[in-house]
Amino acid sequence: MLVSFLKGGRRLFALAVGAGLGFGLSAVALAQQPWTAQSSDPRKLGWMQGAPPPPDRIVRFADGSYFAFPQWRWTVCHFQQLMPTSPVSRGLGAPRPLPRAERTDIESISFQPTGASAPISFGEAFERNFTDGLVILHEGRIAYERYAGCLADTGRHGAMSVTKSFTGLLAEILIAEGNLDENRRVDSYVPELARSAFGDATVRQVLDMTTGLRFSEDYSDPAADVWKHGAAGNPLPKPADYTGPRSYFEFLTTVAKAGVHGQAFGYKTVNTDAMGWILARATGQPLNELLAARIWSRIGAELEAFYTVDSIGTPFAGGGLNAGLRDLARIGQLFLDGGKVDGIAVVPEAALASIARGGSKSAFAAAGYAQLAGWSYRGMWWVTHNQNGAFMARGVHGQSLYVDPAARVVIARFASHPEAGNAANDPTTLPLYRAVVEHLQAGSRR
Amino acid sequence: MLVSFLKGGRRLFALAVGAGLGFGLSAVALAQQPWTAQSSDPRKLGWMQGAPPPPDRIVRFADGSYFAFPQWRWTVCHFQQLMPTSPVSRGLGAPRPLPRAERTDIESISFQPTGASAPISFGEAFERNFTDGLVILHEGRIAYERYAGCLADTGRHGAMSVTKSFTGLLAEILIAEGNLDENRRVDSYVPELARSAFGDATVRQVLDMTTGLRFSEDYSDPAADVWKHGAAGNPLPKPADYTGPRSYFEFLTTVAKAGVHGQAFGYKTVNTDAMGWILARATGQPLNELLAARIWSRIGAELEAFYTVDSIGTPFAGGGLNAGLRDLARIGQLFLDGGKVDGIAVVPEAALASIARGGSKSAFAAAGYAQLAGWSYRGMWWVTHNQNGAFMARGVHGQSLYVDPAARVVIARFASHPEAGNAANDPTTLPLYRAVVEHLQAGSRR
Repeated sequence: MLVSFLKGGRRLFALAVGAGLGFGLSAVALAQQPWTAQSSDPRKLGWMQGAPPPPDRIVRFADGSYFAFPQWRWTVCHFQQLMPTSPVSRGLGAPRPLPRAERTDIESISFQPTGASAPISFGEAFERNFTDGLVILHEGRIAYERYAGCLADTGRHGAMSVTKSFTGLLAEILIAEGNLDENRRVDSYVPELARSAFGDATVRQVLDMTTGLRFSEDYSDPAADVWKHGAAGNPLPKPADYTGPRSYFEFLTTVAKAGVHGQAFGYKTVNTDAMGWILARATGQPLNELLAARIWSRIGAELEAFYTVDSIGTPFAGGGLNAGLRDLARIGQLFLDGGKVDGIAVVPEAALASIARGGSKSAFAAAGYAQLAGWSYRGMWWVTHNQNGAFMARGVHGQSLYVDPAARVVIARFASHPEAGNAANDPTTLPLYRAVVEHLQAGSRR
Repeated sequence: MLVSFLKGGRRLFALAVGAGLGFGLSAVALAQQPWTAQSSDPRKLGWMQGAPPPPDRIVRFADGSYFAFPQWRWTVCHFQQLMPTSPVSRGLGAPRPLPRAERTDIESISFQPTGASAPISFGEAFERNFTDGLVILHEGRIAYERYAGCLADTGRHGAMSVTKSFTGLLAEILIAEGNLDENRRVDSYVPELARSAFGDATVRQVLDMTTGLRFSEDYSDPAADVWKHGAAGNPLPKPADYTGPRSYFEFLTTVAKAGVHGQAFGYKTVNTDAMGWILARATGQPLNELLAARIWSRIGAELEAFYTVDSIGTPFAGGGLNAGLRDLARIGQLFLDGGKVDGIAVVPEAALASIARGGSKSAFAAAGYAQLAGWSYRGMWWVTHNQNGAFMARGVHGQSLYVDPAARVVIARFASHPEAGNAANDPTTLPLYRAVVEHLQAGSRR
């Protein structure tokens, strides 16, 4: 799934994807700019509705149309129907309902977006971010919940790079248990990576993405590594003239070193895929089964989740998770409840604390994220270091899981913003989340 | 999914599938005859185990290896990982546990297989049928439950043509409600089928498979229609030189009439696909959503189910359902409980009665099933007309759901027998089921 590691700059359309894959794809794009949440609503546009759908309303993986906008607003809820996937079992028990204490006053919030001259309303922000679902927990109770676009509470949505944070959480769990050594070299877990850039990196360097890697994510360059990574992981049969790596694992063995490890943060999806390989070797379990055993089956999840997989069935550790929105929020709540669910320890507190305390701010600063000044990256989570100690899981097109320990607030959002990079929605997203937290804190104090 | 409509004769291997598809596939087969349940155990053979799996233990959809034996014993639990699928939601409520009253004495049953000179044990039958899971309900309680091969109670298994019986049940529900007219012509629901064989058939003729169709299921003939049907429904991109129909629906429009409708039973998968199309048009819902709304979300199912889909997302009504075994048993139990779950009507009794009373024995006799003498076919279920009024859903490779109303017994079985046609396992299966029923009835009388 190519799209999951698009992080910056403008979103590319199907034509570029096709070129990058080296497959003969035909571009599909409806010419309408600028799109709004309303004009791109997948229910109104009727993607894949009807038996059969009209030809101009069919969305496919193979021709790249799944990746074009506005089809993307349908795609984000339907990866299972587009490609092979592997389940993350919720187990067989009863779901554990999240208690509710709904706060309709949340809709009255208004706030000033970064760089804007006037405030906008909560509802405007919901639309402007092409939000598909938003759940706000306060003190463990649902304070707000709303769905739009293709999503409902019975459905799942691509988590994109929020996936990374769950891969990271699993790694932190194993480290806290002593089942994974953060100081060991990667090649001691995965000998196949010995000659790659990852070989002499430590597990912790991979986990904090301070590895020195030659891996280009320049989406305007058809020869960029990011396209080769996507082609390797594409589950469709490779074209006859294809000579590149044929799986995520094979791709990782080809990543060359650039610079030194441990100095600067560099957000590169391949670190998470390498982490997935390390986890599979350390536990003997594929990632989907590991996530099910350690977390999904133990939090009272309502919906089975799933990962997209490559042609040999490897879950895409860097971006392939699809899940229900309330289940996403349950993961955030774990951090506020010391890793316990109904008093039973699910995640070691040390694993959660490792993430919450953040990583090196100076290493992070080197990456130059203008809107994330003072943040750090730790265990594949984004740590704000604000006065509340908030941290986030973030995925392209607006996916986010925001955890504010001081305010005991969790904000889980799925979205299908036309621009992949979160730089496009952060000016609205980050002040919104701060405003929600302040509003709920003010309400608590009253 | 080609394999789902293999019903008779010897099982074909990947080479034939490749030829039939017109795709350039390479055959994979491990030469060992005869296979036993033990020697073909997918856990022992290690299919898709490891990160990555060894090259000779990789199973793929695209190269046909998924369909070779013994890989097939892994495949039956992993269709989601091999191809695109569409979910059948169980809803968000708590599963409704099946009560247990286990009867270890069931394992002491022995019985005489059809045509055999000596009895075999229950355990031998379990092995001989390559059973992956067996659940026996008596009086609504689990009397016996055992898993093997790739299956566990948290997993799902291809139901193969048991799928047809659920498509049929949905149709009977709509008929009982007055939302589908069994006497109307098919083309009044699906105008696109007007010029096909289905156009002037009634809904009931399709539902009882008494249509007169030119549709060859001769698996030894590479030009047989069954391969063209599989190629049409194959979700992978079509080869450049492919000129045939490109979806299940398109294929149905090409089916020509042979003979007259309403006279003889002819087991042809395309009837069920046509029924799926009729249901989608009558309800406005795709089949996966219809099954979820009408049944899956209302029986306290433990696991989400799913359908395999073609390249435009159409669920394979004739054979694409994958489900948990206890959930399969729950559907059987519906028939014994008058369509009610916890006193709430889920399925109209008239729909269940329509199936249970069976169809035309003379129409069925014309099809010449030697081992099923005196049976009939109604609403896409196989009706024994034995003294207990038992009826079955049946799928290739040994899938079955056996309902005995008089004995209040349900037997749900998933299997991965190397031979597709149930003629290969019926000599063991049918006397076994009768012996189980007699054993439980005798126990009840004691």
